[in-house]
Amino acid sequence: MSSSDIFIGELIGTAVLILLGGGVVAAVVLKRSKAQGAGWVAITFGWGFAVMTAVYMVGSLSGAHLNPAVTLGIAIANDDWSNIWVYFAGQIVGAMIGAALVWIAYYGQFHAHLTDREILAAQPEVEGLVDQKAAPKAGPVLGIFSTGPEIRVVWQNLATEIIGTTVLVLAVLTQGLNDSGKGLSILGGLIVAFVVVSIGLSLGGPTGYAINPARDLGPRIVHALLPLPNKGGSDWTYAWIPVIGPLAGGALAAGIYQLAFT
Amino acid sequence: MSSSDIFIGELIGTAVLILLGGGVVAAVVLKRSKAQGAGWVAITFGWGFAVMTAVYMVGSLSGAHLNPAVTLGIAIANDDWSNIWVYFAGQIVGAMIGAALVWIAYYGQFHAHLTDREILAAQPEVEGLVDQKAAPKAGPVLGIFSTGPEIRVVWQNLATEIIGTTVLVLAVLTQGLNDSGKGLSILGGLIVAFVVVSIGLSLGGPTGYAINPARDLGPRIVHALLPLPNKGGSDWTYAWIPVIGPLAGGALAAGIYQLAFT
Amino acid sequence: MSSSDIFIGELIGTAVLILLGGGVVAAVVLKRSKAQGAGWVAITFGWGFAVMTAVYMVGSLSGAHLNPAVTLGIAIANDDWSNIWVYFAGQIVGAMIGAALVWIAYYGQFHAHLTDREILAAQPEVEGLVDQKAAPKAGPVLGIFSTGPEIRVVWQNLATEIIGTTVLVLAVLTQGLNDSGKGLSILGGLIVAFVVVSIGLSLGGPTGYAINPARDLGPRIVHALLPLPNKGGSDWTYAWIPVIGPLAGGALAAGIYQLAFT
Amino acid sequence: MSSSDIFIGELIGTAVLILLGGGVVAAVVLKRSKAQGAGWVAITFGWGFAVMTAVYMVGSLSGAHLNPAVTLGIAIANDDWSNIWVYFAGQIVGAMIGAALVWIAYYGQFHAHLTDREILAAQPEVEGLVDQKAAPKAGPVLGIFSTGPEIRVVWQNLATEIIGTTVLVLAVLTQGLNDSGKGLSILGGLIVAFVVVSIGLSLGGPTGYAINPARDLGPRIVHALLPLPNKGGSDWTYAWIPVIGPLAGGALAAGIYQLAFT
Repeated sequence: MSSSDIFIGELIGTAVLILLGGGVVAAVVLKRSKAQGAGWVAITFGWGFAVMTAVYMVGSLSGAHLNPAVTLGIAIANDDWSNIWVYFAGQIVGAMIGAALVWIAYYGQFHAHLTDREILAAQPEVEGLVDQKAAPKAGPVLGIFSTGPEIRVVWQNLATEIIGTTVLVLAVLTQGLNDSGKGLSILGGLIVAFVVVSIGLSLGGPTGYAINPARDLGPRIVHALLPLPNKGGSDWTYAWIPVIGPLAGGALAAGIYQLAFT
Repeated sequence: MSSSDIFIGELIGTAVLILLGGGVVAAVVLKRSKAQGAGWVAITFGWGFAVMTAVYMVGSLSGAHLNPAVTLGIAIANDDWSNIWVYFAGQIVGAMIGAALVWIAYYGQFHAHLTDREILAAQPEVEGLVDQKAAPKAGPVLGIFSTGPEIRVVWQNLATEIIGTTVLVLAVLTQGLNDSGKGLSILGGLIVAFVVVSIGLSLGGPTGYAINPARDLGPRIVHALLPLPNKGGSDWTYAWIPVIGPLAGGALAAGIYQLAFT
Repeated sequence: MSSSDIFIGELIGTAVLILLGGGVVAAVVLKRSKAQGAGWVAITFGWGFAVMTAVYMVGSLSGAHLNPAVTLGIAIANDDWSNIWVYFAGQIVGAMIGAALVWIAYYGQFHAHLTDREILAAQPEVEGLVDQKAAPKAGPVLGIFSTGPEIRVVWQNLATEIIGTTVLVLAVLTQGLNDSGKGLSILGGLIVAFVVVSIGLSLGGPTGYAINPARDLGPRIVHALLPLPNKGGSDWTYAWIPVIGPLAGGALAAGIYQLAFT
Repeated sequence: MSSSDIFIGELIGTAVLILLGGGVVAAVVLKRSKAQGAGWVAITFGWGFAVMTAVYMVGSLSGAHLNPAVTLGIAIANDDWSNIWVYFAGQIVGAMIGAALVWIAYYGQFHAHLTDREILAAQPEVEGLVDQKAAPKAGPVLGIFSTGPEIRVVWQNLATEIIGTTVLVLAVLTQGLNDSGKGLSILGGLIVAFVVVSIGLSLGGPTGYAINPARDLGPRIVHALLPLPNKGGSDWTYAWIPVIGPLAGGALAAGIYQLAFT
């Protein structure tokens, strides 16, 4: 694969991943969306199918890592560090483009949502009458862009991200082992998608499962830059955990892979 | 493929697509349906599996485009314009047949639903006592046939349809690239089905994701023609957006495909 | 395939189908079940995966028809009527065994459910205080065994069953066409499972989608025979519709198949 | 396969199975989890995808039994008893590790959940004001680790576990029969995952479907050992049923397999 194919592939793939992944959170959280309140099953399958769509789309261009933790795990497992910064660059730029596309696709919904909140803020006495389930839990709309913890305990938040990413990257690394040249790699995108649904359903409760530094950091930057009224802070004090945790998980998975599977 | 196979294949396939796709909306929205209130997850998986069922059924006859935006995208990508009007004709006629079959399958439910609304309209003072979730949001039953926006902003509605269709058609065009002759095309119908679920979950919130001109226009014509009492208008002022948006998305996807993937 | 393999295969397969299919309705409907209230998505996926499990289990023994409408459609399409009564016999006996197994697996839940209803019947004045969603809509527990219409209109109920079964049997008959010897038949059980989920989501609202005479008649006989207290009637006046409708749909599908696909 | 590969494979695979399977119950049940209240569909798909993830991960090391009932069924069907205790040891140790990882990933949630319950216990008069759906039904947090019956009837609880495990192990044993060397084993992990979803949806209502002695016993031991405040008892009087029932089901499946399928 050429460097330019890798950059373009990761850029398009990660943009599609974040467009569809951030999109499902917007769909479920924002007011005046047909999917409002569709719940955690919708969010986890939405992210899983986002991965699947992106993997089958750009697999032939870049191998479809779409995630610096996957790139790091593969680099360690194969001891091949060429193009690693090309992967990272495509992933972070793609994630930012995807987050901007979510903003365009849900432009009116963001506006209606934030405006209503603004009205609420000026009239705290009516808050009790409003459907609280419709209001996003952590920060006004940051949850559409980036992850955040339900309970802010650094070691646990970090541990949850490490555990989730270890499962993801170990699943990616072991995909090829059952292949026997007969075609598991064809199924690979679907299996990885369901692994991501699984991690979301099972390990997403505490932190919202970033398990991907680009998925979290890119959209957080876009959230900070976008001219959304009343959008709240970008929670930069938490931002390092969904970067360091997944990278540590990717490295840990590569270590387990080398010890137990080769 | 002969022109008659293409016409018959697209007609049967698009009829099955709309029968199952419109059917799931009827099932979730109408009164006296066992699935009433089953929610957005039911609707998005219902549409996705509708695509899957139709693709595997008529793939050998016509290639199973089932969507003018897909036909346009493939024509541009391959610069092959033969049979394009045969595809369009089969798709729009099939969509109308499918919408009529939904009406037959849910005949009693349509009647019960509309009659109850009629009673309500005459007794506005009891409206507050009625379960509002049971009432369709936009127009009495038009949502079973065609799409409509939650917030009516032309540029955003158009943009959302363009973005969604670009993802769909780019996914269809890149399917073959990961094949290596080993069988991805066998999986193709399933993958495309889950791509459609993904677009529904992630980008369906603002406009209801037509992403297919025939899917929207054919049933809208049937809605205008059907002798349903109290059915409301067919919203023709919106009707051009789910036609032009998806066609623009299909063309955009073909352009991205040619620039980045070939 | 020998006649005894066909009989045993259809018997085991249809027993597993009804055990899992009837089981999911029991799980969602009965009191004191962990899945109570899990909704229509659970029921439709439960029936779909029931089909999948049974198809992969007995496919090598009998071809896994599991449904007289499928057997009839295949017999017409191939003009091969040998063993048709062996298939029917295995299917109906298997369906009865499956229904009896549901009764064993949910024995305590049936008892708790019916006893509570009995108490209610003696105290009609408290009925308004009871969670109505927990009570099955049509007949006390018949819905766990057999289907029934939400609105009793003979021509529509029949039409809905015919339309649903036509989609199912046409999907089964066209499975092989996209194969090209590369393996679609391997995926076949999964695709058919999702077709059944699709029919359930989209066409199940009016009648509960029998789309299989054995699935409806076998368990209805078991319901009539079981010594359940306060079980209500077996609704024999409706029983012919989910037998004749699916058989007509199977024949119609075979006709469409021969006209359009061969 | 070497004994050490089997032990390591079963250990890693069963640890991942219980991490993701116990994790989804924690996610749905515990307070301050983003998935709280996501329901039975989330739980059953969470367990199914947990199986899938583990099967594809360690299939090449140990064959991915992950379940003593599967190991017993395969041993009986093939009359090959070598390594059976290596499988059992890897499975039980892996299950305990997985349960401990759930505790780490949800550390803060366990604490918040148990602390709130503790406060409640001291203030019974406010209990009516608390959302009862947020409270786990059977024992404070034991349900995250092990299964328990909704209605405690020994013969039925045992029968339900036997029936569910028979379906599971028969599905595993018959997987290879439809293969024809063309690749069903590649799909195998996905099919088995959906079989497990099916059993959960359809037969999980009465007992919570252990269908795996290691899945139930390992985490129950960890529940007994963990220093959780206010955690309640480990329900040892029930503990033999989800061990003996699944083993009997595995043996029964092997018997049916030998009688009907070979």
